Amino acid sequence: MTQTNRSVSTGSKGWVGYRPEIKVLDCTIRDGGLMNDHNFTLDFVKAIYTAASAAGVDYMEIGYKAAARLYSRDKYGTWKFCTEDDIRQAIGGEKTGTRISVMADAERTDYHTDILPKEKSVVDMVRVATYIHQIPAALEIVNDAVDKGYETTLNIMAVSTVPESELESALDVIVQSPVKTLYVVDSFGSLYSEQVRGLVQRFQKFTVPAGKEVGIHTHNNLQLAFANTIEAIVLGANFVDGSIAGLGRGAGNCPMELILSFLHNPKFKIRPVLEAIQNTVEPMRDKLRWGFAVPYLLTGHLNQHPRTAMAFMESDDFRDVLKFYDASVSDQP
Amino acid sequence: MTQTNRSVSTGSKGWVGYRPEIKVLDCTIRDGGLMNDHNFTLDFVKAIYTAASAAGVDYMEIGYKAAARLYSRDKYGTWKFCTEDDIRQAIGGEKTGTRISVMADAERTDYHTDILPKEKSVVDMVRVATYIHQIPAALEIVNDAVDKGYETTLNIMAVSTVPESELESALDVIVQSPVKTLYVVDSFGSLYSEQVRGLVQRFQKFTVPAGKEVGIHTHNNLQLAFANTIEAIVLGANFVDGSIAGLGRGAGNCPMELILSFLHNPKFKIRPVLEAIQNTVEPMRDKLRWGFAVPYLLTGHLNQHPRTAMAFMESDDFRDVLKFYDASVSDQP
Repeated sequence: MTQTNRSVSTGSKGWVGYRPEIKVLDCTIRDGGLMNDHNFTLDFVKAIYTAASAAGVDYMEIGYKAAARLYSRDKYGTWKFCTEDDIRQAIGGEKTGTRISVMADAERTDYHTDILPKEKSVVDMVRVATYIHQIPAALEIVNDAVDKGYETTLNIMAVSTVPESELESALDVIVQSPVKTLYVVDSFGSLYSEQVRGLVQRFQKFTVPAGKEVGIHTHNNLQLAFANTIEAIVLGANFVDGSIAGLGRGAGNCPMELILSFLHNPKFKIRPVLEAIQNTVEPMRDKLRWGFAVPYLLTGHLNQHPRTAMAFMESDDFRDVLKFYDASVSDQP
Repeated sequence: MTQTNRSVSTGSKGWVGYRPEIKVLDCTIRDGGLMNDHNFTLDFVKAIYTAASAAGVDYMEIGYKAAARLYSRDKYGTWKFCTEDDIRQAIGGEKTGTRISVMADAERTDYHTDILPKEKSVVDMVRVATYIHQIPAALEIVNDAVDKGYETTLNIMAVSTVPESELESALDVIVQSPVKTLYVVDSFGSLYSEQVRGLVQRFQKFTVPAGKEVGIHTHNNLQLAFANTIEAIVLGANFVDGSIAGLGRGAGNCPMELILSFLHNPKFKIRPVLEAIQNTVEPMRDKLRWGFAVPYLLTGHLNQHPRTAMAFMESDDFRDVLKFYDASVSDQP
């Protein structure tokens, strides 16, 4: 029974080996922020950065670079906008080996002004999130970020709703840009591993000849976040998103503790992650209610945005799953 | 994005089809009983039978047939021993389309006396659970049950710890018996899908020529219970265990609600399962504490029986995952 992880390894070493190219990104604050309008305290963010650093995690995504003109500061917290000062406060005086990433939404980021030249910033990577119809706007941000000196990724959201021919057209354009990594993003948590396989292979048709990497970002609506992440890794995806205790929108993301237990790279340490689970993340469970629940199963199954399930989980009726089911079914065309 | 379930289907129909041979077994009471010494109330068992029947589930496993001489009635409840009378009380006057299964542990069942001839019983199937070293004793129960008129399965437990050569020897013997179905049982919840694939294919080397079926029973220690179940189904496993809300030992089993959402056979209905989740099963969550938790991740990762994690989850310290981690690591040889 020693087949674990075989395909992840570097060939002849078998499962006891590992693939050093795999980079792990912690998105606890960024994706988890979708559960509390990005109102994490500074101490919370510091604790996650400390944990990610001690765990040997390659990147930590600390928040969004949303345009201040578009969102109310009364509603949204610091990590929706995270300025250079905010980030420096969180990571303290000296940077660890964990690089800092920020997410820029296409058409919702004043990137000209809000993303500084790299030499003036502690940020290392800009990840551009885009729907399929926003690709040109997304590529403008990519180009600007590359010009300013950043590593970049392009994350195509809600990919489960994109027709294959349109996706191929988009990939063909994207690989001509200077972006380094293209992410498969299962925004709705609706993908089975077989579909992840098809998507990663479709991405690789374009990324491999262009010398670019593929990344994977999953949600746990069908309890498949970890399985789908493994599927992508086995196929060659080298950028892997996870969050501590799975904290993320709706059913949450692939749990970091599972990713690190799966990868055999000795640079990764699980204990700091467990410490953050216990002392920092789990105490938020009752308030934020992320993680697998029947309403998220139902939106995932129907390949829908989780917003109706999220609203339901915030209501006092959140245990009345029949009510949600009956409403979902009657909503169908 | 319409690849879902393609491999499950019947060829040319694509993913909109289904494989009618697939039988779903509800093990909520039997495996869930490992969390409360089988002390479910009669009403609880009735509610699960009602739900399984309304959902179109093929089998419900209602408990163990443990030898009364071996276990204290003070500690263990009805569903550890479930007599003919117990079962008849639970299912009421008229049987539904859901067949009744009982589990007999090798060497722990007085099958000569406690398993009645089929014509005197409402039970339809006897599942024999065995460790690799008990195969001869297990086959005695199989032979007895077949002689008495029952459908049978043989469930090889803790298969993740069995050397491949010994497993093949066992399979070679088993397929010469009259047993109908051989189950791959991931008792420790430690298997990755790649390993499930290897095991199912190894089983099939013996079952296919012998005209027997393969079954799959998973645990959720690594949040892979559903993914591993799908993997087995795609490869051709036609017996699939699930439990409502995943209620089962430790990290629990593959949730029935996910299985039914995945299979496209219109005979399966999800709403009765959701009703049971809401009204019957979830109200037990705080008391029984089944389901994914870090201690189960750690025993699964180490390919260990979950008993240390279960004891820890019953303690007042159950949120102190660092304590469990540190003890696990120092226990290693």
